[in-house]
Amino acid sequence: MEWAPIVANVIAGLIAIVLISAVAIVLRKMAHRLITRVVQRASSDRPSLAGRLRGKDVIPLDGLDAIMAERRRQRAETMGSVLKHVASIIVLGTAALTILERLSVPIAPLLTSVGILGVAIGFGAQELVKDFIAGMFMLLEDQYGVGDVIDVGAAVGTVEAVTLRITRLRDIDGRVWYVRNGTIIRVGNESQGWSRAAVDVPVAYTVDVPVVRDLLNKVVEELWQDTDFRDSIIVEEPKVWGIEQISGTAVVFRVSAKTIPSRQAEVARELRVRVKAALDGASIPIASVA
Amino acid sequence: MEWAPIVANVIAGLIAIVLISAVAIVLRKMAHRLITRVVQRASSDRPSLAGRLRGKDVIPLDGLDAIMAERRRQRAETMGSVLKHVASIIVLGTAALTILERLSVPIAPLLTSVGILGVAIGFGAQELVKDFIAGMFMLLEDQYGVGDVIDVGAAVGTVEAVTLRITRLRDIDGRVWYVRNGTIIRVGNESQGWSRAAVDVPVAYTVDVPVVRDLLNKVVEELWQDTDFRDSIIVEEPKVWGIEQISGTAVVFRVSAKTIPSRQAEVARELRVRVKAALDGASIPIASVA
Amino acid sequence: MEWAPIVANVIAGLIAIVLISAVAIVLRKMAHRLITRVVQRASSDRPSLAGRLRGKDVIPLDGLDAIMAERRRQRAETMGSVLKHVASIIVLGTAALTILERLSVPIAPLLTSVGILGVAIGFGAQELVKDFIAGMFMLLEDQYGVGDVIDVGAAVGTVEAVTLRITRLRDIDGRVWYVRNGTIIRVGNESQGWSRAAVDVPVAYTVDVPVVRDLLNKVVEELWQDTDFRDSIIVEEPKVWGIEQISGTAVVFRVSAKTIPSRQAEVARELRVRVKAALDGASIPIASVA
Amino acid sequence: MEWAPIVANVIAGLIAIVLISAVAIVLRKMAHRLITRVVQRASSDRPSLAGRLRGKDVIPLDGLDAIMAERRRQRAETMGSVLKHVASIIVLGTAALTILERLSVPIAPLLTSVGILGVAIGFGAQELVKDFIAGMFMLLEDQYGVGDVIDVGAAVGTVEAVTLRITRLRDIDGRVWYVRNGTIIRVGNESQGWSRAAVDVPVAYTVDVPVVRDLLNKVVEELWQDTDFRDSIIVEEPKVWGIEQISGTAVVFRVSAKTIPSRQAEVARELRVRVKAALDGASIPIASVA
Amino acid sequence: MEWAPIVANVIAGLIAIVLISAVAIVLRKMAHRLITRVVQRASSDRPSLAGRLRGKDVIPLDGLDAIMAERRRQRAETMGSVLKHVASIIVLGTAALTILERLSVPIAPLLTSVGILGVAIGFGAQELVKDFIAGMFMLLEDQYGVGDVIDVGAAVGTVEAVTLRITRLRDIDGRVWYVRNGTIIRVGNESQGWSRAAVDVPVAYTVDVPVVRDLLNKVVEELWQDTDFRDSIIVEEPKVWGIEQISGTAVVFRVSAKTIPSRQAEVARELRVRVKAALDGASIPIASVA
Amino acid sequence: MEWAPIVANVIAGLIAIVLISAVAIVLRKMAHRLITRVVQRASSDRPSLAGRLRGKDVIPLDGLDAIMAERRRQRAETMGSVLKHVASIIVLGTAALTILERLSVPIAPLLTSVGILGVAIGFGAQELVKDFIAGMFMLLEDQYGVGDVIDVGAAVGTVEAVTLRITRLRDIDGRVWYVRNGTIIRVGNESQGWSRAAVDVPVAYTVDVPVVRDLLNKVVEELWQDTDFRDSIIVEEPKVWGIEQISGTAVVFRVSAKTIPSRQAEVARELRVRVKAALDGASIPIASVA
Amino acid sequence: MEWAPIVANVIAGLIAIVLISAVAIVLRKMAHRLITRVVQRASSDRPSLAGRLRGKDVIPLDGLDAIMAERRRQRAETMGSVLKHVASIIVLGTAALTILERLSVPIAPLLTSVGILGVAIGFGAQELVKDFIAGMFMLLEDQYGVGDVIDVGAAVGTVEAVTLRITRLRDIDGRVWYVRNGTIIRVGNESQGWSRAAVDVPVAYTVDVPVVRDLLNKVVEELWQDTDFRDSIIVEEPKVWGIEQISGTAVVFRVSAKTIPSRQAEVARELRVRVKAALDGASIPIASVA
Repeated sequence: MEWAPIVANVIAGLIAIVLISAVAIVLRKMAHRLITRVVQRASSDRPSLAGRLRGKDVIPLDGLDAIMAERRRQRAETMGSVLKHVASIIVLGTAALTILERLSVPIAPLLTSVGILGVAIGFGAQELVKDFIAGMFMLLEDQYGVGDVIDVGAAVGTVEAVTLRITRLRDIDGRVWYVRNGTIIRVGNESQGWSRAAVDVPVAYTVDVPVVRDLLNKVVEELWQDTDFRDSIIVEEPKVWGIEQISGTAVVFRVSAKTIPSRQAEVARELRVRVKAALDGASIPIASVA
Repeated sequence: MEWAPIVANVIAGLIAIVLISAVAIVLRKMAHRLITRVVQRASSDRPSLAGRLRGKDVIPLDGLDAIMAERRRQRAETMGSVLKHVASIIVLGTAALTILERLSVPIAPLLTSVGILGVAIGFGAQELVKDFIAGMFMLLEDQYGVGDVIDVGAAVGTVEAVTLRITRLRDIDGRVWYVRNGTIIRVGNESQGWSRAAVDVPVAYTVDVPVVRDLLNKVVEELWQDTDFRDSIIVEEPKVWGIEQISGTAVVFRVSAKTIPSRQAEVARELRVRVKAALDGASIPIASVA
Repeated sequence: MEWAPIVANVIAGLIAIVLISAVAIVLRKMAHRLITRVVQRASSDRPSLAGRLRGKDVIPLDGLDAIMAERRRQRAETMGSVLKHVASIIVLGTAALTILERLSVPIAPLLTSVGILGVAIGFGAQELVKDFIAGMFMLLEDQYGVGDVIDVGAAVGTVEAVTLRITRLRDIDGRVWYVRNGTIIRVGNESQGWSRAAVDVPVAYTVDVPVVRDLLNKVVEELWQDTDFRDSIIVEEPKVWGIEQISGTAVVFRVSAKTIPSRQAEVARELRVRVKAALDGASIPIASVA
Repeated sequence: MEWAPIVANVIAGLIAIVLISAVAIVLRKMAHRLITRVVQRASSDRPSLAGRLRGKDVIPLDGLDAIMAERRRQRAETMGSVLKHVASIIVLGTAALTILERLSVPIAPLLTSVGILGVAIGFGAQELVKDFIAGMFMLLEDQYGVGDVIDVGAAVGTVEAVTLRITRLRDIDGRVWYVRNGTIIRVGNESQGWSRAAVDVPVAYTVDVPVVRDLLNKVVEELWQDTDFRDSIIVEEPKVWGIEQISGTAVVFRVSAKTIPSRQAEVARELRVRVKAALDGASIPIASVA
Repeated sequence: MEWAPIVANVIAGLIAIVLISAVAIVLRKMAHRLITRVVQRASSDRPSLAGRLRGKDVIPLDGLDAIMAERRRQRAETMGSVLKHVASIIVLGTAALTILERLSVPIAPLLTSVGILGVAIGFGAQELVKDFIAGMFMLLEDQYGVGDVIDVGAAVGTVEAVTLRITRLRDIDGRVWYVRNGTIIRVGNESQGWSRAAVDVPVAYTVDVPVVRDLLNKVVEELWQDTDFRDSIIVEEPKVWGIEQISGTAVVFRVSAKTIPSRQAEVARELRVRVKAALDGASIPIASVA
Repeated sequence: MEWAPIVANVIAGLIAIVLISAVAIVLRKMAHRLITRVVQRASSDRPSLAGRLRGKDVIPLDGLDAIMAERRRQRAETMGSVLKHVASIIVLGTAALTILERLSVPIAPLLTSVGILGVAIGFGAQELVKDFIAGMFMLLEDQYGVGDVIDVGAAVGTVEAVTLRITRLRDIDGRVWYVRNGTIIRVGNESQGWSRAAVDVPVAYTVDVPVVRDLLNKVVEELWQDTDFRDSIIVEEPKVWGIEQISGTAVVFRVSAKTIPSRQAEVARELRVRVKAALDGASIPIASVA
Repeated sequence: MEWAPIVANVIAGLIAIVLISAVAIVLRKMAHRLITRVVQRASSDRPSLAGRLRGKDVIPLDGLDAIMAERRRQRAETMGSVLKHVASIIVLGTAALTILERLSVPIAPLLTSVGILGVAIGFGAQELVKDFIAGMFMLLEDQYGVGDVIDVGAAVGTVEAVTLRITRLRDIDGRVWYVRNGTIIRVGNESQGWSRAAVDVPVAYTVDVPVVRDLLNKVVEELWQDTDFRDSIIVEEPKVWGIEQISGTAVVFRVSAKTIPSRQAEVARELRVRVKAALDGASIPIASVA
């Protein structure tokens, strides 16, 4: 045997490996930078969208901008982290396979082993990928954030944490819910813009309609004048909507008030107390709807 | 080693790369132009469809044309943007692979890495693609736009935003709903053409049918004469449909009025007040349906 | 370098490209012609089927033939258009790939790019293809047309438009429904042949059965003699079906009348009025079913 | 250039094309013949099965054999037609590809184009294939035919047409239903063998059990003696099954009569009239089940 | 041209074809034999299982062994037939392809045609295969046979026929149900071992518990002594289970009797008659459960 | 022709075949041994898990160890048998294909035939594989055994047999249920550890709370002292949990007793008798919950 | 034959085998170490998350840190074990295939056998993989642990064991539930942070609202002063929320108390007793909600 070509070969191999590794590392770095930049732009683009949405907020809430900025930063970080992992796996995996091939190691058996396992796992992992994709878009679209009260079908409550895979809520009974993002097909967010408190007032059929209407109008007028509620909680003069339902025993009026987000229950309770007092004062009993 | 062929090789390679890049850039530009043109034609074709649809609007609404034109422009933009991204990815991806191959870089390992990840993600991303396709057709068919009141099954409310992936609604309680387009299998749009206010009037079984019918006819006649409603809200003379249901305790009449879109609740409330007044005047009580 | 073979090569290439293009254009034309012919035959075959179906119509409706011919023409056009697009894509796509190959452009990278995207999109586009296939068969089988009242499960209403992807309905409240054809697993068409108005008449248990039966028979006899209804609306002498249900408090008779399509509600209302009048005349009260 | 080998080549090519075409045409013919024979055997085999089923018919119905023979012929035709199309496509497609290959036309690009479209469509067409397979087996197993009253879950009615893809029913209200065969997971056929009319008779708890039982026995005995019903409609002496349910207010007897297919409603109505008359005669009131 | 090698070639080809055909025929025969033997062993193995199951039958039923043997024979035949078809298709298909290849006929185009159709059909045929596999295991496990009363969710009734694809039932109203085996996820068989008749007896809250218990004990004792029922229908002394439910108005006792399969309704009716008679004798009224 | 190399070839072929067969047989044996050992270890490992579970059993049940050992043996056998079949098929199939290849028999056509059928069947057989995998894990995790009372959603009853594909239950009415293991997504086992008998006692709102509480405490105290129940059936002193519900008409107390598995119904019946006696003694009536 | 090259060959083969085996063993060891380290870091990272979650616990629970540490250790072990198995299979499988190839054993037949089985099983095993992935993330995210009371939809109870495939719960009746992790789409954990006891108090419509409110305020004040509950069970002063519902017969107040996790039922019972006593004292009856 002649050693010269072998040595040359080995040296060439080593050089190739070093080169490939170097290229891979550089590429990975570049990919990470790119991702950072794209993600940041994406999440600072959105604020404009979120901004427009928030722009409908009827009450300027102090500190909203700071909260939004913080949310934006977190979003960028969360999304960037996953994308960077994916980029690293692709770049380093390709480099590793290229090196193995350069070294004439037969990689077919390896690919076979990995491939069979890969397919088996791939099918099962669909759900996982679905969760991640759903989570990524939820963040991008800023559908909700920590502190919002949301309805995801499976559970209703206050958001405690949002990750790419799950959303964690705490419902009104203190139960903590872990919901996979991919299983959420529609989200109802009660903490954006405004909420409405609607109270149905059924009175006996025999009662005179205009009388009750005036009475209710007076109640909502007083509530609107009450500085405890006006502007700070109720954001628009409440209205009496008229007869929603009519039956042999009752005529149902509806009273409606727009409130700042998530305060509607409180206002509805106050409305019930005041309506009852007013009706009692006029000796008009509330009826049962048959 | 002789340097001549190597240098020739390198130069040939560089020329190839420049050529491929140039072709790719030109192709990409052409594809974008083509998409712009096709999308614009598609969305100005549709208006005719939308136009025909709107042509059924019973009341000419001022400014409808301007709104339609604006919607059309937005639609063209939204759809074009996605198609352009797809075209860019195909053209640039192909160019990159061709260059790598020209440089004798082994691309099999890269394809393997990307392929395995691709399949894994592909399965999970189905939902995403479904959402986008559904969104694209919704836009093309102009099923609804911002401001329409729609029923998507999961939620009912006023559309606040339509993107290719989701539709954002606000329901009557102020809750904001994010619904993925791909999960919407049927949409009910309450803001196209007209709406109907239908009020059921149950009266005691013993009451004379023709008497009640005359009474109700008089009520709807008066409503139709009322200039607050005629033409501006109610678009056709309301009708009494006759006996919808009959039981041992009640005979149920139905009164129906066609209104301009999304105003039916208001008209129904007015109808209930007037019907009650008329029946009270004739001392005919409303019955409870068993 | 010798230029002769290169020039020869270039010329041969150009000739090949021209030839391939010519063949492709001819093939595309032929395919379109073939499709036009097949589709026309298919949709004029069907009328026979539709004809047989309509042959069961109990009332000859003037102009039905013209409507049918128009529907047939539209159907042929709608279906032909999609098939022609598919044929164009196959023929031109193949020609393009053949030319690229002839020019020694490496098409593997292109196929890879397109393939990966294709699979990703393919999965998501299933729904779309399903909708189109369902729509095509609906048209071919003439399941319903514009103006029919249909029940597609998700919504019930009058058809306003049928495309290959969706069916547009307007329900009785004026809501416009867009339903994807692929999600319709069964269609109920109320506008083919005849409809039946069935009215249940519960009378007190103590009432004599033959007496009520005679009374109801007289009512349906009079209705059948009424020229406002006979033949133009009701197409067969109505019948009293007998006791459908029996309980401690009521005996339920059913009265049934066959009408021309979609007019059953009207006839049922008329029947209720007449039955009530007849029973009132005989002092037989309608009972409540427990 | 020498023309001899080229001419020889061209002639050889033409001969090959003619030969391949001839073989393809012969094979197609043979396949069609084979299908005709197999399908005919399959559908005349089945009659034996159907026969055995019909053999359980309690009443020999004249003309049943002729109807069966006609149904069999139609079945053979419907199924043969699809199979022949499939055979033609395979044979002619293979011949076309073989010829193209013989002519050295590169078919890879064609296959690529067709393949990508094929997969995309294949996924969407699953439903279609499912419908056809289901339809084929329904015909083979003779589950129902035109004129039978069937329950397919989505709809109940009289079969008006059976194709390989859909079944057309007309329900009792005159609505025409198109149901895709592949969506039918179970079929209930009311027109095979016999039907049962079962009437529940609730009497007051205080009534003597043997007295009521005797009374009901007398009613069913008389019905069985009535030549309007015996044998022509009711096919077995009706029976009183005894106490099905017992509560504080009522004792429920059940009366049951086997009838020829689809006539049970009529018999049940007759039974109700007669039972009521008998109970009235004995002053035993029917009770309400709590 | 020299004819010698061609002739030799042709002769060699013919010999190869004959050999391949012969081997195929022999292999097919062997496969069929093997299947016959395996299937027979499988279905005579099972009887032991079925036997063990039947061994729990509380009453030895004459002729059960003969019925079991017949069922076993049928089962073996049904299953063998399908497996033989599959084996024939594989062996003959392979032989045909080998011969074509030996004859240098290009089979790639054929495979392409068949393959594309195959995949398209394969997806749609899943349901079919599922049905057959489910049917095969049902037979192997002897889950039910002709004459058994079973509950398959979609329908409840007496089995009339079991094939590999469907199960045919007739329900109590005479309706014939065709249920695809693959859609049956659980089967309830009422004809194996024993059935239980359970009758709930609600008596007024004020009644003395031990008195009622004694009374009911006497009733079940008498029933057990009745030779019409003892052993031939009821297989174990019936028992009074005690108070199942207690409310302000009633105390509910449960009486339970084990019967031979499918006779429980009859025994329950007899129990109700006897319990009512006994309670009437003791002037204890049955109560209504609120 | 020279015979020498042919003969040498044939001899070499025979030797290869013998060698391959020998290796296959040895490998198969080794695989079987390995499986036996692994399965035995797995199922004797589990007992520790099962043991820990059973270790929570509040009452030491004699013979439990023997039952557990027997169950373990059966489990090992059931699982081993399937794995051995799979191993045999892989080893022998590979050997057969290797021999065919060694004999220069073209195996591509065979693989094609098998492959097409394989894919078609593979899709349909998913359910089967799912059932087996589910069954295997159920056995490994010892979720239930013959004699346990379990709730699998589709049916509730006593387990009569567990195979890898199905679980056979007998419900309380004697119906035998066959449930496919793969369709069971959650199992409730009532025969592990303990069961709880909970009896709700509604008394009139006006009754004094402490009085009833004392009364109920005395009842449970007496039951606990009763040697018929103490320790042998009830495993912990029963408790009165207090007011579970309160309404205008009733206050609901809950009494709870821990029993050995599956005896809770019996204890609940005894509790009801004793509670009624005690309340009757104190003249406190049980109320109806509105 | 010359033996020298053969001997050289054999020796080279042996050396290769030894080398491959050595590399495989080393790689496997390295993979295991890596997994151990990564998993440990992952599960000690999480505690910080869990810590933050627990940080919301209103009451510092002694020993929580130790429990958390133990849980973390178990989690690391459970997850590491599966990953190590997967790594071993990949490394050893690749080594085996490489050795077989080095020995010139044809591995294609083996791969074919394994492949066909693999695909068949792969489809069926999806569910299994899904369960494992879900289980792994549940552990990583520390959604629940042994001893927590959780609601997984299919069942509600106390967690007894968590493995990667299933979660074992025991519900309040003592039933043990085995729920597959992959079927859990949302988990509600009642044992994290706090729980809320909410009691609705309906009083008659005629009662004065402020009076009841004061009464209820006094009740909750006393409960909060009670050292049996304060801080150890109830973690915040309970509140009266006001009128939740109003009808013709009742006004419903809601009383709410935050408790430590899983003690809400106990507090609610105590609240009911105290509220009833207070109302009785003031002669205010609880009303029934219509």
